[in-house]
Amino acid sequence: MTDAAVDTRPAKPSDEPLKVDLDRLRGDLLGFAQIGCKEDDNGTHGIYRSGFSDADMEARRWLLSLIEQAGGQARLDEAGNVVGRWFDDVTAPAVVVGSHIDSVPAGGIFDGTLGVVAGLECARVLRESGLRPKHPLELVAFADEEGRFGGMFGVQAYCGKTTLDWINNAHDVNGVRLADAMRSQGFDPNQALNAARKPENIHRFVELHIEQGPVLEKEGLEIGVVEGISGVFKWVVRLIGRANHAGTAPMDMRSDAFMGLADFAHEIPRIIEEDGTDKSRITVGKVELKPGYPHTVPGEVEFSIVGRDMSGEVMHALADSCRKVLSSIARRHRLHFDFEELSWLDPAPCHPSVVSMFCKQAERLGYSHIVMPSGAGHDTQFMTEVTQAGMIFVPSIGGVSHAPNEWTNWSDIENGGNLLLNTIYAYLTGEDD
Amino acid sequence: MTDAAVDTRPAKPSDEPLKVDLDRLRGDLLGFAQIGCKEDDNGTHGIYRSGFSDADMEARRWLLSLIEQAGGQARLDEAGNVVGRWFDDVTAPAVVVGSHIDSVPAGGIFDGTLGVVAGLECARVLRESGLRPKHPLELVAFADEEGRFGGMFGVQAYCGKTTLDWINNAHDVNGVRLADAMRSQGFDPNQALNAARKPENIHRFVELHIEQGPVLEKEGLEIGVVEGISGVFKWVVRLIGRANHAGTAPMDMRSDAFMGLADFAHEIPRIIEEDGTDKSRITVGKVELKPGYPHTVPGEVEFSIVGRDMSGEVMHALADSCRKVLSSIARRHRLHFDFEELSWLDPAPCHPSVVSMFCKQAERLGYSHIVMPSGAGHDTQFMTEVTQAGMIFVPSIGGVSHAPNEWTNWSDIENGGNLLLNTIYAYLTGEDD
Repeated sequence: MTDAAVDTRPAKPSDEPLKVDLDRLRGDLLGFAQIGCKEDDNGTHGIYRSGFSDADMEARRWLLSLIEQAGGQARLDEAGNVVGRWFDDVTAPAVVVGSHIDSVPAGGIFDGTLGVVAGLECARVLRESGLRPKHPLELVAFADEEGRFGGMFGVQAYCGKTTLDWINNAHDVNGVRLADAMRSQGFDPNQALNAARKPENIHRFVELHIEQGPVLEKEGLEIGVVEGISGVFKWVVRLIGRANHAGTAPMDMRSDAFMGLADFAHEIPRIIEEDGTDKSRITVGKVELKPGYPHTVPGEVEFSIVGRDMSGEVMHALADSCRKVLSSIARRHRLHFDFEELSWLDPAPCHPSVVSMFCKQAERLGYSHIVMPSGAGHDTQFMTEVTQAGMIFVPSIGGVSHAPNEWTNWSDIENGGNLLLNTIYAYLTGEDD
Repeated sequence: MTDAAVDTRPAKPSDEPLKVDLDRLRGDLLGFAQIGCKEDDNGTHGIYRSGFSDADMEARRWLLSLIEQAGGQARLDEAGNVVGRWFDDVTAPAVVVGSHIDSVPAGGIFDGTLGVVAGLECARVLRESGLRPKHPLELVAFADEEGRFGGMFGVQAYCGKTTLDWINNAHDVNGVRLADAMRSQGFDPNQALNAARKPENIHRFVELHIEQGPVLEKEGLEIGVVEGISGVFKWVVRLIGRANHAGTAPMDMRSDAFMGLADFAHEIPRIIEEDGTDKSRITVGKVELKPGYPHTVPGEVEFSIVGRDMSGEVMHALADSCRKVLSSIARRHRLHFDFEELSWLDPAPCHPSVVSMFCKQAERLGYSHIVMPSGAGHDTQFMTEVTQAGMIFVPSIGGVSHAPNEWTNWSDIENGGNLLLNTIYAYLTGEDD
């Protein structure tokens, strides 16, 4: 930077951080908030943009027009992903920024949409800055991240991680087939695999998302730099004892399936203390007693266990410990114990180089931050398989998401946008090549 | 017994125990087992004689004819109770023996019916013995003991413990009104209160019943002499925390309502050890989580607590302890706690004189026995309010009842019948006047 004759600096000096225009960002978010917005029975307004619904497609078409207004090349790919490109004259793998604009039923206005709208705003600012980048910039709004049809169809297709078999069998909870939903919106499901991108054409992937959890707000922090998406296992467990009259069966002659579950749940904190980490989670979220009468000792209980950690090894230790504790409790209460592992997803670590870059930029911008796991799934988890990928969180008020009262302060939105922008700028200008 | 000139002994010397005829007893039980017997989907045969159903009335009519064949005076009273009388020329309060012949849906062949059929067999043997008793004998098959319409209508009417208001409001789970069910079987519900009997006309009440619990079989005993029917309280408890994403909410930032319930259930053995007795029971039989999804921390749980003991004071101590433990757990887990007491029934102790008489006769007959509480409700519990009442149990195989596979060995049936017979004999002959 001292030799003017060989100055290869971009048009804008990199020591002055770029800034997003919060008014434009807010305007776009509130614009998308109008699409698929419905009033519930209790008067609250939730977002209804499930994958490939009319509202979802309306949002995608509006995004296409916004990309074009921002000087980008816009298209829908074969899997329904919205793709925008800037600086496409540069021949190099692209820096990709993205998230999703579909929603859960009665969802909030930030989940996914923030990352897409912020990516668009980054493109605007970068284009306006007169930047001459070393990589093209690509914005993607992935299809059906919320898994109306199971999995994360859009990003899986983009990463080449789906099959025609899966596409032709996928259906939503109402039995609507993905293939039919796609056709009704003008897509040919048999072409969906053509959405797959070559990994060598992707330089980095970055995503901005709301935390959807309470940590950042509770800790008073501005930014969470995600170290990875936790692995998760899901079990359904059955404890079978004997149903008895709750009056005639003395306490010591019972085989009470619920008391077995209670004793197991009571051990969960110890299991995590002994075999887990501060990133471990074990949750019993669903419980069904049989026969389920107040005056009958429960002869049977079926319940779910969902376990998470950032380490596959720790996940195995937690699962082993759950199994051992359940076996021993079953013996103590004279119960039959069996379980089925419904799913096992390994952790998806973000790339250390991207984690470092986010931290470096956050420090430069003066944002308080921590490195933390994501307990929820995100498009990033599939992108980690094909490129150096990472993501950042901004605080969620009360940790609320997937609900109409999901909220994030505008100052946090601005911070997240600025961190995303300066990170993209660093990648576009080859700072980490 | 040494002075022949003033011999007031009955026709049969009291030192030779009377014996029931097991063949007749078995024949009657198997006869009633044909009435209302239906085959279930899985091929088992259960008894369907709910109160005031056609099958119930068919059984009552058959019982009326059996009473007459046994030389008794038979009638249906205004509440649907079958009443048989023997030795009615004696002017004195009656020794009453009874139970019920209605059943739960898919019930067994012994529950209730054993006590009625055994009472009938006692009347036969006593009549055949040429006895000249000091009291008349009355057999009652009470209506709707199983509470199709709530409570125990027949015995409550017999004891004067019901009201026209209650009768006119009572209905079954399908909305059928008691008054309509009575009318359809030829009763006038407005006359039901006339079934009430004057306490001064009742000398003693005795009942033989199957245990419906595992104690006698487990302990290898032939007879249970019931010290009373346990009191029972029923609560519905709500713990309200906050539903969170099971991935994004760290363990220490949760308000997990289910973990509160689990910690409470875990304390139940300690609560009973500290504040209860070996007759105490605390059961959590019904549990509902909200939202009840595997991937969501349960924000709310509603569950039942049913507590029992033979002492009202102990019941209060148990209830207080449950409340205190729940309050403290709710604070620990950041939960809101409330509960509603749906019902509180005080214990109904059997009369000590009847307990003693049963024990004395059991010793005389050489039957192994214990004094024990009844955790289930029986007609006897209302009879304790109007006379000196008591009851005995015979073993239930596996403690099973209210199910088609309810069973009691015929030798135990015979023992129970003999103990009932010799106890009635003692009362009829004025041994305890």
